[in-house]
Amino acid sequence: MVDRRLRSAEILAVGSELLTPFRTDTNSLFLTARLNELGIDVCGKAIVADDPAALQSALRGALDRADVVLTTGGLGPTDDDLTREAIAAVVGVASVEDGTVLAAIAARFASRGMRMPAINGRQAQIPSGATVLPNPRGTAPGLWMPVSDRVIVALPGPPRELEPMFDAEVVPRLQARGSRGVLRRRVLKIAGRGESHVDELAQPVYGPWRDADVPITTTILASSGQVELHLAAQGQDSVTLDRVLAAAVEDMQMALGPIVFSVDGLSLEEVVGQRLRERGLMLAAAESCTGGLLMGALTDVAGSSDWTAGGVVAYSNAVKEQSLGVPGDLIATNGAVSEPVALAMAEGVRLRLGADIGVGITGIAGPGGGTKLKPVGTVVFAVVGPGESRVVRTVRFPGDRAMVRRMAVHTALDLVRRALSDQT
Amino acid sequence: MVDRRLRSAEILAVGSELLTPFRTDTNSLFLTARLNELGIDVCGKAIVADDPAALQSALRGALDRADVVLTTGGLGPTDDDLTREAIAAVVGVASVEDGTVLAAIAARFASRGMRMPAINGRQAQIPSGATVLPNPRGTAPGLWMPVSDRVIVALPGPPRELEPMFDAEVVPRLQARGSRGVLRRRVLKIAGRGESHVDELAQPVYGPWRDADVPITTTILASSGQVELHLAAQGQDSVTLDRVLAAAVEDMQMALGPIVFSVDGLSLEEVVGQRLRERGLMLAAAESCTGGLLMGALTDVAGSSDWTAGGVVAYSNAVKEQSLGVPGDLIATNGAVSEPVALAMAEGVRLRLGADIGVGITGIAGPGGGTKLKPVGTVVFAVVGPGESRVVRTVRFPGDRAMVRRMAVHTALDLVRRALSDQT
Repeated sequence: MVDRRLRSAEILAVGSELLTPFRTDTNSLFLTARLNELGIDVCGKAIVADDPAALQSALRGALDRADVVLTTGGLGPTDDDLTREAIAAVVGVASVEDGTVLAAIAARFASRGMRMPAINGRQAQIPSGATVLPNPRGTAPGLWMPVSDRVIVALPGPPRELEPMFDAEVVPRLQARGSRGVLRRRVLKIAGRGESHVDELAQPVYGPWRDADVPITTTILASSGQVELHLAAQGQDSVTLDRVLAAAVEDMQMALGPIVFSVDGLSLEEVVGQRLRERGLMLAAAESCTGGLLMGALTDVAGSSDWTAGGVVAYSNAVKEQSLGVPGDLIATNGAVSEPVALAMAEGVRLRLGADIGVGITGIAGPGGGTKLKPVGTVVFAVVGPGESRVVRTVRFPGDRAMVRRMAVHTALDLVRRALSDQT
Repeated sequence: MVDRRLRSAEILAVGSELLTPFRTDTNSLFLTARLNELGIDVCGKAIVADDPAALQSALRGALDRADVVLTTGGLGPTDDDLTREAIAAVVGVASVEDGTVLAAIAARFASRGMRMPAINGRQAQIPSGATVLPNPRGTAPGLWMPVSDRVIVALPGPPRELEPMFDAEVVPRLQARGSRGVLRRRVLKIAGRGESHVDELAQPVYGPWRDADVPITTTILASSGQVELHLAAQGQDSVTLDRVLAAAVEDMQMALGPIVFSVDGLSLEEVVGQRLRERGLMLAAAESCTGGLLMGALTDVAGSSDWTAGGVVAYSNAVKEQSLGVPGDLIATNGAVSEPVALAMAEGVRLRLGADIGVGITGIAGPGGGTKLKPVGTVVFAVVGPGESRVVRTVRFPGDRAMVRRMAVHTALDLVRRALSDQT
């Protein structure tokens, strides 16, 4: 067995349920992130049925192409669980019962006052030459199976079993086999600009990075009103990589300015919460078209009761008047979707809930309710506070009802973030 | 070329971005649902990099195993878009420029007042023998490429281009090639019971179905507080299948009773909205630990302004007192998370917002705030109305903050649904 460096991987998700319209493999996203950090590229992924011939053929193909073949699933005790047998067949070895594994499975059942069903004995059948990877969270042990200068790694399907097993048992073994160093990554999160606009602003900065001593690769990803700029560097020394990336992040922040809201993984609602907490301020929101989703996003953050007073979902004009004190003639004159009404909603919720910052959102999420002057997607935002600060903004979003609502929540969060940083 | 029936399919998602930790293929879920309806099984899926050798090898392997090979992506105009070339190479034919395709692409640009970039000419290079599938929503045409008695179908990557192309161009071609009949499916949605409990109740009903003249297969799927029971039947005559499935759905509804909330695809919030609309009632909600997510879910339904008055997010005790009129000594005596407070919240929001039904939710979503008597996950619900109806319920949910909040929203919706049906 030659100990060659491991550079490439393929991932096989095993299970017929993953070939229905209802489920898909997601373990591979976790595994890909971890493998990339170890400097191992994922060059292919496949989803394979619980079928001996299909599974063996997929294993052979993947072993032809990749240094590391990872399987997920198919390690349970039933007849459908074929990964162990398929690995033994492909490598051309017999399986033998492992007494230690069998005892561990039996002990697991005993600890719950149960007798081990005979069927679980299958999980102790280990292909010769494989190292058993213990599974503290389930009965299915994993396998590390060297195949000449390559390796097959068999992992259980449930993420709560797979993830700790991978980190505890597989990462150190892959590291010991060298790989081509470590990969470090930093993420800048950006609000209020589209993907192509961010790329345009960022290009002059990241252009020279590709030819630097430690080259930095960049990826831009967009999703509903938020853009992520990923910076990655690969090498042997993580301290150097982190230093280079920190400098790059700083350059990029300088170039992009205040549209960057996070360089440390925090979400927009977490950043807003952090700033409110730092300044000892409380927020309240009056929502019409977002129907509670802004408050829902803010209260997703643990500890948010320290900086959110509460909110009012004012879907009808009657509620806008009674619960927020928006004057009826203001609505009659300007329409419910208007800057004066958004401002009155924000003022009203701030006053009535005794908060420092009030947010008002009113708009037309669709599909109905649009007019020529105020088409579907028109949303008006007001942020009142801290102190005398007043921001009002009208935006027209594209997309369907769900997308308009999602982007409106994101925009409101960003307006609050900016209102808070202007005064810092 | 023999016209054999098409029974099996493999799906290849093409694109290196699908091999990063950030993106995964989801088009295959749509395609699998459609193929299953045509009686075609999906026997494997793979994700392939933008690499000529990898793509050709994947195409050859899939053609060996399956009657239909579908590719998604790789049909754009850039050097990374290799699907056309790979198909030509695997089938062993040359590509020729298709004048009609080229004119259509140029016209698409012209209609926006733009000149077609030269690079888009690549998209008019069609492998000999392939039928072009028009793409009204983009520049990339699809391909239908017969390979002896099998077929390769190349589709564009963006779902908004792929889905209409598949329905308009591919479904009729697959139907013309027979397949083994149609597959029809019905879905029962169930609230308030776990997967294994539903299975226990359903088993006596669906046991005999397997050996019936038209056998019905069943699948149980669970996700955050909701269980789906899928019934499927396959055959040549969709009228018969629909009749058999309708009878089966009725039997199953009888066995499961009121825990079934939908047999026609509607979500729980849509069912609640439908019942409110039918009875001309308005709902208002006072939310503490769910922080606006219940109102957010209800207002996801288009037209929800007809049956939602609004809501109050009462995170702090001060807001519970001022905006909902919950007596301060009620909170002092019972604690904010208690049945009397939930009831007072529901009464308060109903009264103040002039609604027919009031919902109150107060609980401890975690991670902090739990006590011995009221641990994290404890949530108290109250539904007041219609009329004199009063329901109060205390539930202890497992899981983290996000899961507790999600299950609390689901439970509140189900309590409203039941309050509405009890009086019908």
